[in-house]
Amino acid sequence: MRIEVLCTGDELLNGTIADTNSPWFMTRLFELGELVARTTVVGDDRGELISAMREVSARADAVLVSGGLGPTADDLTAECAAGAAGVPLVEDARALEALRARFARRNMELTPNNARQARVPQGAEVVLNPVGSAPMFILGMGRCTLFFVPGVPREYQALVEKEVLPRLGAMLDRQPGRLVRKVRVLKTTRIWESHLDARVIPIAAKHPRIRVGYRTHAPENHLKLLAEAPTREEAERALAAMEEECRAELGDFVFGADGDELAAVLGARLRERRQTLAVAEGCTGGLLGQVISSVTGASDYFLGGAVTYSDALRQAWAKVNPEALERHGAVSEEVARQMAAGIRETTGATWGLSITGYAGPSAGTPRDEIGTVYCGLAGPEGAPAVEKSLFAGDRDRIRRFAAHAAMDLLRRTLR
Amino acid sequence: MRIEVLCTGDELLNGTIADTNSPWFMTRLFELGELVARTTVVGDDRGELISAMREVSARADAVLVSGGLGPTADDLTAECAAGAAGVPLVEDARALEALRARFARRNMELTPNNARQARVPQGAEVVLNPVGSAPMFILGMGRCTLFFVPGVPREYQALVEKEVLPRLGAMLDRQPGRLVRKVRVLKTTRIWESHLDARVIPIAAKHPRIRVGYRTHAPENHLKLLAEAPTREEAERALAAMEEECRAELGDFVFGADGDELAAVLGARLRERRQTLAVAEGCTGGLLGQVISSVTGASDYFLGGAVTYSDALRQAWAKVNPEALERHGAVSEEVARQMAAGIRETTGATWGLSITGYAGPSAGTPRDEIGTVYCGLAGPEGAPAVEKSLFAGDRDRIRRFAAHAAMDLLRRTLR
Repeated sequence: MRIEVLCTGDELLNGTIADTNSPWFMTRLFELGELVARTTVVGDDRGELISAMREVSARADAVLVSGGLGPTADDLTAECAAGAAGVPLVEDARALEALRARFARRNMELTPNNARQARVPQGAEVVLNPVGSAPMFILGMGRCTLFFVPGVPREYQALVEKEVLPRLGAMLDRQPGRLVRKVRVLKTTRIWESHLDARVIPIAAKHPRIRVGYRTHAPENHLKLLAEAPTREEAERALAAMEEECRAELGDFVFGADGDELAAVLGARLRERRQTLAVAEGCTGGLLGQVISSVTGASDYFLGGAVTYSDALRQAWAKVNPEALERHGAVSEEVARQMAAGIRETTGATWGLSITGYAGPSAGTPRDEIGTVYCGLAGPEGAPAVEKSLFAGDRDRIRRFAAHAAMDLLRRTLR
Repeated sequence: MRIEVLCTGDELLNGTIADTNSPWFMTRLFELGELVARTTVVGDDRGELISAMREVSARADAVLVSGGLGPTADDLTAECAAGAAGVPLVEDARALEALRARFARRNMELTPNNARQARVPQGAEVVLNPVGSAPMFILGMGRCTLFFVPGVPREYQALVEKEVLPRLGAMLDRQPGRLVRKVRVLKTTRIWESHLDARVIPIAAKHPRIRVGYRTHAPENHLKLLAEAPTREEAERALAAMEEECRAELGDFVFGADGDELAAVLGARLRERRQTLAVAEGCTGGLLGQVISSVTGASDYFLGGAVTYSDALRQAWAKVNPEALERHGAVSEEVARQMAAGIRETTGATWGLSITGYAGPSAGTPRDEIGTVYCGLAGPEGAPAVEKSLFAGDRDRIRRFAAHAAMDLLRRTLR
């Protein structure tokens, strides 16, 4: 089955916004085991829209069309769909009633341009929009089914998730000889894609039902396992067997699966143990605290942090002693160790985590070039640990890698 | 002149990565006053690639084709370009020599698959790649010129900037009656797009040479001014006149122009005055410090910050008194005021900036719902100021708006 995507809107062609809807849809579709065959983006232009709709419907079995369903003059999608299909636009009574009710709830009058949103190509199936005003509609053109949804990401995702994907799934299931597909993503840190690949190749050889893919989501590498089998049970069994072997081989390089995020995995472990965390950061400037606290409910275990850009603050908040700063410099193993122990002490947290490094583009020393980062960890037992890393890239990338490395140091300690 | 974009690569169709190259190119092209007419994305598939190349070259005057120029088996672009044009692939001696030299510098042998990258369609103009191995090439097909560049963003941007845009500019300049276009973007905060529009409309009426556009880059709104005139001087003069009136009308809603970022604008004002800054953050969890310190050289004025998730840290680092916490709660005007004054005092900074709020999704109170944020500012003169805001959206969005509002509070004070 050939599936295509058609996005509309001038704002997608003048650099104003990036199309984030399509990657989201593609990821969800990949989980059904399908790839989009082609994506086309056109502006708010009648001729361009009509010819693009005709072209995609001549090539594809199903097309997801987004955007241009709003109330303003440059919203041309319904009109052009009717033009491409050679049918008139007609007012849908249910859609109009839903619009009236929506406006009435807000004590607003339904203006003529809003009422336009109830007009769809004759013969289209209308699906009401639970989170916005523009209804979605489904139109057959030749052997192709076109799904028209709004471009606003919240409305797009709600309708694609609830209405489009189940219909596409049913179309796929009706295909003769169609295999059931299941996907599992294992997320890793601290291992290069080539090394990951080398370790997985011998396992993959034993699991012919599984297709293996990789995705770099720096600093993470993700291993994608896709099982294909005649039944759901066989696909799930094949996937589970492969996953188990991969996890055994990769050990704690794997920090989670599918939708897991490192900060949430770390947070769950801390919450489970009823332990707390505080951080002291240099070059990341607050990023470590920000990522840790991006998890809902992080205040259960995150006490706070110190961003120490000056020596005075390194001493006051992170208890770094002046001699260490003098002798080793602020970016050093010894200072990372003292920051971790110091922040743990001043905050009373179970764990103290620290980062000090050179994020560039200036600074760095003959000993430690730009990209050098020390992560320190102090806990209830033993001496504080320090890991030294060298990250490539620009300031932003080095900071992201540093925050990730610090969280991962604690995650591995909490396994 | 009709310009199209053709992106290739399975990774753009399975949700693995979003195409960030195209929005970048579109922004640069818009500065030449041109829009992309259509974008097409296809996977690594010979049939799909060849038909897409034939279609775009039949429609457009110029096409930017990216991706698929690497050394591996799924890099099919050069081969398919030759197929679409009906010419053989030939080895380019200069490109091969450059590859050899590049590999020799790294003490690596040039393998046959790397040498493949020197093969281009017969008749193509080859442009060496200053930052990678795959050369770019330019191929005419009918009346259309196709520019083939690598998809790796660093290589893509280098080649598009240095080689493609100047050639497109020259093609545009050769068009009869072509007007010179100049663009200026004014960046604003704290004003809605509709209010911005209402204030700009009367000015625009007096400047017929200027086209006005808007872009929401939440929490900022950007005003785009595009001047068109027969000569560069006239375009620049028209733009300068319009800009001056807009700035007078909009006052300190405007924080910068073109590539200016709020954190850098703020940093420049602090550096100019030889003043320093420290921050105390609640719900933003480190984001404020991170954004302020994302500017190169921020350590000249940024001393550091305290992320105070616990009452103990609010008291210890930000000098909030326990009675205020008890009486008003951590999210309150009084605590924001004390945090700003307290962080200024403990760090000795010229300015103390604070944030306390409810980022959600849980918490909030009957008085202050989720999205309520207090930003405090303490400085060398007068009592600390506090601004209260209510931001809509999810946790991430509320945090972003809060950090932006805090920086903007100081920026306006430093005008």
